[in-house]
Amino acid sequence: MPTQSVDPRTGEPFGPVLEDTSLASLDEVVRAAGQAADGWADVTAAMRSTALGTIADRLDAAADELVPLADRETGLGGPRLTGELARTTFQLRMFATAVEQGAIDRALLDPEVAGPPPAGHPELRRMLVPVGPVAVYGASNFPFAFSVPGGDTASALAAGCPVVVKAHPAHPQTSAATGALVAAALESAGAPAGTFGIVHGYDAGRQLVQHPSIRAAAFTGSYAGGRALFDLAVGRPDPIPFYGELGSVNPVVVTPGAAAQGVSLAVGYVDSLTLGTGQFCTNPGLLLVPAGSGLTELVAAEAAAREPGVMLHAGVADLFRSNVSRLEALPGVRTLVDSSDSVVPGAHSGPVVLAASARTAREHPELLRTECFGPGAVVVEYGSAEEMAGLLDQLEGCLVATVHGSETEPLAATVVRRLGRLAGRVVWNGWPTGVAVAAGQQHGGPHPATTNSLHTSVGTAAMARFLRPVAYQSVPAAFF
Amino acid sequence: MPTQSVDPRTGEPFGPVLEDTSLASLDEVVRAAGQAADGWADVTAAMRSTALGTIADRLDAAADELVPLADRETGLGGPRLTGELARTTFQLRMFATAVEQGAIDRALLDPEVAGPPPAGHPELRRMLVPVGPVAVYGASNFPFAFSVPGGDTASALAAGCPVVVKAHPAHPQTSAATGALVAAALESAGAPAGTFGIVHGYDAGRQLVQHPSIRAAAFTGSYAGGRALFDLAVGRPDPIPFYGELGSVNPVVVTPGAAAQGVSLAVGYVDSLTLGTGQFCTNPGLLLVPAGSGLTELVAAEAAAREPGVMLHAGVADLFRSNVSRLEALPGVRTLVDSSDSVVPGAHSGPVVLAASARTAREHPELLRTECFGPGAVVVEYGSAEEMAGLLDQLEGCLVATVHGSETEPLAATVVRRLGRLAGRVVWNGWPTGVAVAAGQQHGGPHPATTNSLHTSVGTAAMARFLRPVAYQSVPAAFF
Repeated sequence: MPTQSVDPRTGEPFGPVLEDTSLASLDEVVRAAGQAADGWADVTAAMRSTALGTIADRLDAAADELVPLADRETGLGGPRLTGELARTTFQLRMFATAVEQGAIDRALLDPEVAGPPPAGHPELRRMLVPVGPVAVYGASNFPFAFSVPGGDTASALAAGCPVVVKAHPAHPQTSAATGALVAAALESAGAPAGTFGIVHGYDAGRQLVQHPSIRAAAFTGSYAGGRALFDLAVGRPDPIPFYGELGSVNPVVVTPGAAAQGVSLAVGYVDSLTLGTGQFCTNPGLLLVPAGSGLTELVAAEAAAREPGVMLHAGVADLFRSNVSRLEALPGVRTLVDSSDSVVPGAHSGPVVLAASARTAREHPELLRTECFGPGAVVVEYGSAEEMAGLLDQLEGCLVATVHGSETEPLAATVVRRLGRLAGRVVWNGWPTGVAVAAGQQHGGPHPATTNSLHTSVGTAAMARFLRPVAYQSVPAAFF
Repeated sequence: MPTQSVDPRTGEPFGPVLEDTSLASLDEVVRAAGQAADGWADVTAAMRSTALGTIADRLDAAADELVPLADRETGLGGPRLTGELARTTFQLRMFATAVEQGAIDRALLDPEVAGPPPAGHPELRRMLVPVGPVAVYGASNFPFAFSVPGGDTASALAAGCPVVVKAHPAHPQTSAATGALVAAALESAGAPAGTFGIVHGYDAGRQLVQHPSIRAAAFTGSYAGGRALFDLAVGRPDPIPFYGELGSVNPVVVTPGAAAQGVSLAVGYVDSLTLGTGQFCTNPGLLLVPAGSGLTELVAAEAAAREPGVMLHAGVADLFRSNVSRLEALPGVRTLVDSSDSVVPGAHSGPVVLAASARTAREHPELLRTECFGPGAVVVEYGSAEEMAGLLDQLEGCLVATVHGSETEPLAATVVRRLGRLAGRVVWNGWPTGVAVAAGQQHGGPHPATTNSLHTSVGTAAMARFLRPVAYQSVPAAFF
């Protein structure tokens, strides 16, 4: 069905009505990507690096048009989107630098060892080659950094793979504008025709991951959507890797040694919880605090004082309210704050704070496992270190886990170690929102946070998802 | 159903009848692995390294019992199995050394960068943690090196993961003997109880990959078996990585510049083709030669002179014959040698050489894509470089591709590059059988060769399949 932009602040549609990509057009776009694959794989590192830099430059130059457009489609606000666009172009330039410095072309040269096997062996030159065309599924909550010109596209292009993006229907005009800009930048940098393409529509999204020319897929979004596409990717006659970042309940554990920080901890937590109206995959929706520390009440008081914020679209706001309602209905759950049913027109929501004892959470583990995408907190109070450990045993995999503790407290080190078994990232005395684009980053985590916990979608290592090793045995050096 | 060893040289069963592992016993074994996971992950590198070395030492010490037992079950012969056992213990010691040298404990420390994002960021310490219990499915054709104490088990244990092996029914006694030895070695080295387990039976194999405590699986075997287990692994409520090495048709391309080598090339090829009665996943079953070079006839003459060899079991011999018959029946295919229907009792087969023109192969691409597991060659004659390139375009992914050419021949470099897009390993002027256990190795390749072409099952990098990165953000160094 055709897509039109909707202003989430008013609920009013605006701008052109965009038709879905037909199966024939999709096939044309993906075939073109397939035909571009060898050429884009073979360009020099300098040229590929320049092309990535050109995309970044053109995005920066178009900021004055792109930011207001994205703001009207997402309601995320000018300052946030200006920062997000800067992050997006920083990310493109990080990959450009990595490519230029030989991150991909570098070979592991294992020299010949004379003598019979198993110790003796011929020369082996282990190198990386791009896997081929990559399907990228943009997310609604980052119209730049996790959408058309975002980290998945940048890392796949850097790895030498053509990209076909499935645009997110919540920001179709921003997707089309950034898509046209990426395509033009690549063309001007001399990339083969077909190196970048974009498709629109639900059916096109399902067809894309099943197209024979697509060799890998990257997705950021909901569990249901990601799992459906994952099932299609692995159900192919030739299964392909599907890197899905899905839902995540990100726990924050406050140890007894940190609980005395009181108000400052509560303010920091609520700041992180309500940032971007809570619409981050790293949102700290679960808070474990010592019973009797008073933190629950401080968090509730702080949250109650915050204004409602705009949400990405009506569907996100509705899903948030329905998830919150389901948890509120559980016996033993106390609703301390619920501003989810905002009276403001359009898609808005204020904070929600629910509280429960460790015993209630044990009896109803959905309290520990339901992602309420939005500014919603479940605060669980534990009575002892054993009770806290019991809660951690009930948690599912997550993108990021946070510990607030004291460095001299033995329990704190234990909790950090325990959370390292559960999460892709562990934050100490900080907040999980804000994912640094850096070589040391790991933005991933065990299921259900992602479909492949060995990889990251943020940071230099994100390229590894689209590179395959080849061992060249005794091949003359002159051939490389 | 119960399993009994069969001597493939005679077809006679021998030794004890082994019962399948019941669902209750399997659950007990896998739960024990789950309970061992944290303990085995937390042992020091020195202790884990010592444990791997102890397994190697005990296998070497038991060679006089293990080799004859494996020989009677597989028919692979004493010299080959002595070499395979040496390879297996070499492999265990290679992982022991890697662990001791910090291959796993090494962190990527990305220091704090002052200033606001996107450039500024907190300290990130990227480390590797084991994924948890691993299911290993042993292969029939390597009763040591790709079975109970083989590369999958060694690399998973090295990564800090408990292992539960599904024993291959074609060598049940060797599996039980090596399994008991691995378990005892780990126990004596102080590994937690449950770090290693073994199960038997078809149903147990299917249940194993679906057990909630299993976090990854590694498989070497047939396409059908591997795909069935892959489908179970990715169909779980919580999908797990499945590293399957499945079928592979491994092409050998002889360029015009190498064709003049004549007899020596034909002898080398037939040696590789018939090694171990052709029962290698790296067997060079497809040979592309210049039309009119006479190589087809030289290969046929050489193959016709070879004696039949024993095969692993009747099922392998039957499948080889039926695959060969299917290709022989295609119009345009010439049967130059067919000694597959050996009159020798037990499971035996002699070489097969089929020949076809490039045109026939284009019309019947199954000639290029059917793995005849055994000593069977399809020789395809090409008339020009373009015709050869057209054949390469029809090939599917493979473990290893080989080029015989001249270093000064431009076509040779082109073919090497083209095959790098298709294969996990490219061999120059050598033969694909014999996979070196080394840091530079890549034993994998695009589908259908494997279910995950980003990883290798041989060489130091095999550990990466069972390690997951975690970024520790601003966590005190004292906690590590």
